[in-house]
Amino acid sequence: MTSENAARPAARRLRADRARQVADVLRRQVLDEVYKAGPLPHEERLAEEFGASRNTVREALDLLRGEGLVRRVPGAGTLVVAEKVPHGLDRLAGLAETLHEHGEVVNEVRAFGPVRAPGPVARRFGLPDGADVFYVERLRRLNGLPLSLDLTYLAPDVGAALDPAELAHRDVFRLIEEAAGQPLGHADISLEAVNADPHSATVLEVPRGAALLMLERLTRLADGRPVDLEYVRFRGDRLTMRGRLLRDLP
Amino acid sequence: MTSENAARPAARRLRADRARQVADVLRRQVLDEVYKAGPLPHEERLAEEFGASRNTVREALDLLRGEGLVRRVPGAGTLVVAEKVPHGLDRLAGLAETLHEHGEVVNEVRAFGPVRAPGPVARRFGLPDGADVFYVERLRRLNGLPLSLDLTYLAPDVGAALDPAELAHRDVFRLIEEAAGQPLGHADISLEAVNADPHSATVLEVPRGAALLMLERLTRLADGRPVDLEYVRFRGDRLTMRGRLLRDLP
Repeated sequence: MTSENAARPAARRLRADRARQVADVLRRQVLDEVYKAGPLPHEERLAEEFGASRNTVREALDLLRGEGLVRRVPGAGTLVVAEKVPHGLDRLAGLAETLHEHGEVVNEVRAFGPVRAPGPVARRFGLPDGADVFYVERLRRLNGLPLSLDLTYLAPDVGAALDPAELAHRDVFRLIEEAAGQPLGHADISLEAVNADPHSATVLEVPRGAALLMLERLTRLADGRPVDLEYVRFRGDRLTMRGRLLRDLP
Repeated sequence: MTSENAARPAARRLRADRARQVADVLRRQVLDEVYKAGPLPHEERLAEEFGASRNTVREALDLLRGEGLVRRVPGAGTLVVAEKVPHGLDRLAGLAETLHEHGEVVNEVRAFGPVRAPGPVARRFGLPDGADVFYVERLRRLNGLPLSLDLTYLAPDVGAALDPAELAHRDVFRLIEEAAGQPLGHADISLEAVNADPHSATVLEVPRGAALLMLERLTRLADGRPVDLEYVRFRGDRLTMRGRLLRDLP
């Protein structure tokens, strides 16, 4: 089948395949705020730019509407409605540090205090089973809109030194560095896409099943000690992770 | 509200909040194949490990079932059914290179040939508007199961040098390096979580709306020339991105 499909001319491809192609390129234009100032160009203009039919362009715009990036407004055309912010993958930084150009991050603290560490958490921290850790849960908003729900386990000494009043406006990273008297070193991260369960969807104010970017991050101090284990659900329609990969590590 | 919530004892939190906490820690256990060999421990054992009620553990397992990671088998308990593979965020590598320990990557070539570059694509390559680029579309399978749908634009000289027969079993990265006579240099990436549109869902064999990890990647040769612009939809239930972030860049 490979050679037959490979030879299939682009013109004879399904419109859904063509619409996906157009949507993927347009998505970047939308996210990079190329069209932020006003409506997207008319369908006819986009059809020309993409060498596609108007029907294909319309279907591509439907895909981006489905992602919550654009909205069709009668009489005004297609408008960008997303406020999707970039989060760097190149450097270990807190959300407020990362997004300071994009607005104010405010954290609603949903839980704060010592808890008995679940076995797997204790082991990640190198603590004995049954040890206490510090648990912090925050709903994080950017300019008033929910951006992420963060579940955070902290090493007990670091957690106990935190002032809960500071958590509303400051990143945990900075507070840890102050509490520990040394900078952070590195973090191991995992990124996944998951569908929002009903309760998380309610908290993040998204439809049930909305795509979330799920980050697990174990952060260590400069001396190597693990102090911060986080499980972060970012709203998929509000955040992009960006970074640079090198073919060969330096 | 912050201080009131902050003081709320963990025991009085909603069961949904507690279930999310348990699920997030369990997810890693499942993905790291801690429980791969057999069923998960009994609910009672997990309840003890997590200091949670059995009802909370049951709800946590329901969340992981919703993500397609585990399945409840009457008489056998809860089994891990996910085959989720890690993709490195630390180094620029192709899928087959990255996953060689996990099985065989086979690519079904859905489109292959020159196309007129959409305006934004031409500009990313530094080509004049209306220039041709090479378009390749592949459905990529790992051990027979769909893993990703890759839409790839290649610089015209690089694309024209490709042998379509090679694309079924080899990474584009290696083929580009052979065609260009030099190694790749670096890539700028964006990662997002999106819900699968109906057609992409059909191609990837996931339910409509399933969470996908969407990667955009512009890859350059060692000499800095952009040669490969890709839009990759990874199945959220089959892939984790993993990497390490440093607090300060070296």
